[in-house]
Amino acid sequence: MNKIMRINMNDATVHCQEADESYELSGGRGFIARILTEEVPALCDPLGPENKLIICPGLFGDTPAPCHGRLSVGGKSPLTGTIKEANAGGTFAKRMVSLGLKALIVEGQPSSQEWSIVVLSNDAAEIIPAAKYTGMNNYQLTDALRTEFGSTVSIASIGCAGERGYRNSTIQITDPDGRPSRAAARGGLGSVMGSKRIKAFVIKGNGEYKGEYHDRAAFLENNRLYTKEVLANHISGQGLPALGTAVLVNMTNAMGILPTNNFRQGQFEHAEEISGERIAELQSARNGIMKHACHAGCIIYCSNVINDAEGNYLTSGLEYETIGLNGANCGIRDIDVVAQIDRICDDLGIDTMETGCTIGVCMEAGKIAFGDGAAALQLLQEMKEGSEFGLLMGQGTEVAGKALGVKRIPTVKGQAIAAYDPRGLKGTGVTYATSPMGGDHTAGNALGMPGDPGDKADKVEISRNLQVAMALMDSLGICIFASFVFENPANIALLANMMGAKFGGEWDIPKLMGLGVQALAMEKKFNKEAGFTAKDDRLPEFMYSEALPGSGLVFDITDAELAGTLPF
Amino acid sequence: MNKIMRINMNDATVHCQEADESYELSGGRGFIARILTEEVPALCDPLGPENKLIICPGLFGDTPAPCHGRLSVGGKSPLTGTIKEANAGGTFAKRMVSLGLKALIVEGQPSSQEWSIVVLSNDAAEIIPAAKYTGMNNYQLTDALRTEFGSTVSIASIGCAGERGYRNSTIQITDPDGRPSRAAARGGLGSVMGSKRIKAFVIKGNGEYKGEYHDRAAFLENNRLYTKEVLANHISGQGLPALGTAVLVNMTNAMGILPTNNFRQGQFEHAEEISGERIAELQSARNGIMKHACHAGCIIYCSNVINDAEGNYLTSGLEYETIGLNGANCGIRDIDVVAQIDRICDDLGIDTMETGCTIGVCMEAGKIAFGDGAAALQLLQEMKEGSEFGLLMGQGTEVAGKALGVKRIPTVKGQAIAAYDPRGLKGTGVTYATSPMGGDHTAGNALGMPGDPGDKADKVEISRNLQVAMALMDSLGICIFASFVFENPANIALLANMMGAKFGGEWDIPKLMGLGVQALAMEKKFNKEAGFTAKDDRLPEFMYSEALPGSGLVFDITDAELAGTLPF
Repeated sequence: MNKIMRINMNDATVHCQEADESYELSGGRGFIARILTEEVPALCDPLGPENKLIICPGLFGDTPAPCHGRLSVGGKSPLTGTIKEANAGGTFAKRMVSLGLKALIVEGQPSSQEWSIVVLSNDAAEIIPAAKYTGMNNYQLTDALRTEFGSTVSIASIGCAGERGYRNSTIQITDPDGRPSRAAARGGLGSVMGSKRIKAFVIKGNGEYKGEYHDRAAFLENNRLYTKEVLANHISGQGLPALGTAVLVNMTNAMGILPTNNFRQGQFEHAEEISGERIAELQSARNGIMKHACHAGCIIYCSNVINDAEGNYLTSGLEYETIGLNGANCGIRDIDVVAQIDRICDDLGIDTMETGCTIGVCMEAGKIAFGDGAAALQLLQEMKEGSEFGLLMGQGTEVAGKALGVKRIPTVKGQAIAAYDPRGLKGTGVTYATSPMGGDHTAGNALGMPGDPGDKADKVEISRNLQVAMALMDSLGICIFASFVFENPANIALLANMMGAKFGGEWDIPKLMGLGVQALAMEKKFNKEAGFTAKDDRLPEFMYSEALPGSGLVFDITDAELAGTLPF
Repeated sequence: MNKIMRINMNDATVHCQEADESYELSGGRGFIARILTEEVPALCDPLGPENKLIICPGLFGDTPAPCHGRLSVGGKSPLTGTIKEANAGGTFAKRMVSLGLKALIVEGQPSSQEWSIVVLSNDAAEIIPAAKYTGMNNYQLTDALRTEFGSTVSIASIGCAGERGYRNSTIQITDPDGRPSRAAARGGLGSVMGSKRIKAFVIKGNGEYKGEYHDRAAFLENNRLYTKEVLANHISGQGLPALGTAVLVNMTNAMGILPTNNFRQGQFEHAEEISGERIAELQSARNGIMKHACHAGCIIYCSNVINDAEGNYLTSGLEYETIGLNGANCGIRDIDVVAQIDRICDDLGIDTMETGCTIGVCMEAGKIAFGDGAAALQLLQEMKEGSEFGLLMGQGTEVAGKALGVKRIPTVKGQAIAAYDPRGLKGTGVTYATSPMGGDHTAGNALGMPGDPGDKADKVEISRNLQVAMALMDSLGICIFASFVFENPANIALLANMMGAKFGGEWDIPKLMGLGVQALAMEKKFNKEAGFTAKDDRLPEFMYSEALPGSGLVFDITDAELAGTLPF
């Protein structure tokens, strides 16, 4: 897996190159960090020809490691202006691996306004006109592409949001059922793909590539032990498969950190109605699926397939963040409305999290009322139609909030934060503030870590360790949920053994974590060159001054303390 | 003139203190820079209680120096996030001087939503309820306040824009005719005043304060010589008094740098119709006034009083920037429409420059057509009414442009640039990029400087020298138009002599310019602490990549070259 395919959209040419040895240990998030720091001017227009769109599996993408099929998508973010790696499930990573592709790098920008589809098979890539597909949203588009290219294709595509340059737009990835339900959601990378005038990447057929190992037997043995631990873990082996990520709704509500009414409260009186327990009950009656693998390679099965009240497919991957931010944070208690929002977001190709926070600031501004699900769906309709207000919402929570004159805007570096109020979960707050990605929970979520979550003690260190570990997992291409076992260092050592068995050399825990440190350091370097400083590493003002009802907590970790989070 | 009045809006208390000696040489822009760097947390919310609103005359405010009555208004800008000094004409500075007031500093924020008027007389300040005045725009408000407090008052007030927190809002200052036609326009300081819930400052009566001198006779003699030079200068003594700043329309159009259709062109085919010559012709027939002093203390008389077609007063101070940005830049050829826009802006209390560029990006987005004056007036009506779209426009050009999905947004650090296309006037472009104020022409406009304006040679040095000189003039409280005589260093020496005669000590040109350097250095310090870096010191992307039609020029001064502009 060392072929790098470069697609130059200036002249619609494709070049496949063997990656030199120095790339051997660059994969996923680490690979993206390297390409962006080495090849993309940090001050470039994210939607201009100098930005690059990078799509790649992780270093363990060609192994049977648990949950090894995550896809990294990267570029300079049009939402945040920072470096960006958006991580997705789906089948695309595995299919890239089957072609022996370490990465796709899309460069340049066509001078014409015509759209293309990129069709990949083995080491060939064909760039074909996409006129008949433009204007389609992801579900219709996926159906049409599967009809044209066969039902076994894997697709990465954009909907109308990416076409129109919405800065909240995603790249949707087809899931194991062939539906565009998985998203490289954060940071507006759909609009970067749109700026290259690529409507979809389609991988036809399966290649013959098989992973190579320094010591295959040793890898398999250590992997067997690691996998066993993941499946035995109380979260990744029990909680998540049972109720999915939505299991968190009741938990965060009890903790008082479930964002409610644009982060005005941390508890939602109707939390039970949007909880994982409630979803399981409903879907049981509707023949939905509560154990579903979001990507090829998954062993945790924390995702779901959601049917509507008539028992027909509605959406897949109705996750905690989507529910928290479009449900409680908008005061919406009807889980079927939240599921509809999820479906529409996947279809248009917009980030459910950014969308929930954007609807939240619209409610804060009085545009619509908190709790009015029908009005929220109408706002999504505006984004779908591309009305003036829809376009405004498509620019994300910060621009929408500012345009509406809202002062309480829950963003960091222009990106909406996740469904954990940082005043009551300070370790995650440190991550929101300091992650090179902007407000992001997957970069290091401290939920469940030892200690009082609302007390500032140790939170900088907790966030640092998590951020390094997540950067590692995102570089390996392993789902971050397979890292709950890190609570026992012996399990990290197994992963280090797997690295040695795969790539050779001596690997211990510090060397393994060094991959994460290296990725973060490159990301920080890119951001620094893009003009970001420690002054950008802070939460929105109201998190410091407005006490969270109930607990009375504010975010009290100082800028000076935050500055010590990622000292590399 | 060493009394500093602090108005604390937390508890509506007023404290008058004698400034200690260290403030003797701090005035105007320099005073603001000092207070902000010493007292205001650079990362504070500009509309929150930690920001301070500072209003002060300059160091020569109590002298007969030419054009000595300029007013400096400062705070952290809600538009740019940088430090901000907005400079205005009008009578307020002189009236502060008459009370012996070196500065007004408004601190804190009331917990209630009630509005106040601050009435000043001698060293007393009364804070009285303003309920009956809220919702009024500046013309009606000024009339009402003059009725209540007498026609001799001087007023600094906000209209509905400042009340509503528009980030493009001004503080309007009454002119020598008592009309609210002068503005501390840039950076949204009207909303800072609004955040303190102050609707207006009213100065009643004239105090007895007289300026003190180290050597009064020497001051007067040097001042006589300096004044003579200002009046003899071909620009400040001839060009400006004849046609006002609007004399520039035909000049910049001929140079190809008159922004047209959102900076798409540098020449406007109807430039003649909005030129100073045309205004003079029209106003001659309508009994308007083409030689008008914008402030008490002016000797140049470059302003005007504009009557409508029926010969009735319409507006005052119809300046080049307003005409360039609301006329040519919006493709609007009807000077009466531009004059109406000017009037409405003064009335609502919004920056004419920010407004012209905001209308420009609305036109770029297709919201209304280029050249459609009636539609532009309708957009102003939306700002007046506070509709959703009006609120959006009130957030300034950058937010409006982003919300509308526009890529060509003519701003630097969030502030609209002025009516000189920087591709063809590179010295001014360097100032736009590097001024601590954000996109600003008064910080150092290179128009008329020696050399080819479209060639990059020497432009960094030219901008540096101008920025230092303007920071000096803004600290002295002298109109920047009295600095055209700086082309002869002997005149700068006269100003240095005046400093020595006023404050004592030996003053030469380097020491005099040191005041400007000192102000700029403090401003840069504040911005650095607010998170700004050299990476923020650049023009919008399209200025580098899109050639100006006609000349084919792009802005080609590199970031590394720009970084050398203000090396202190």
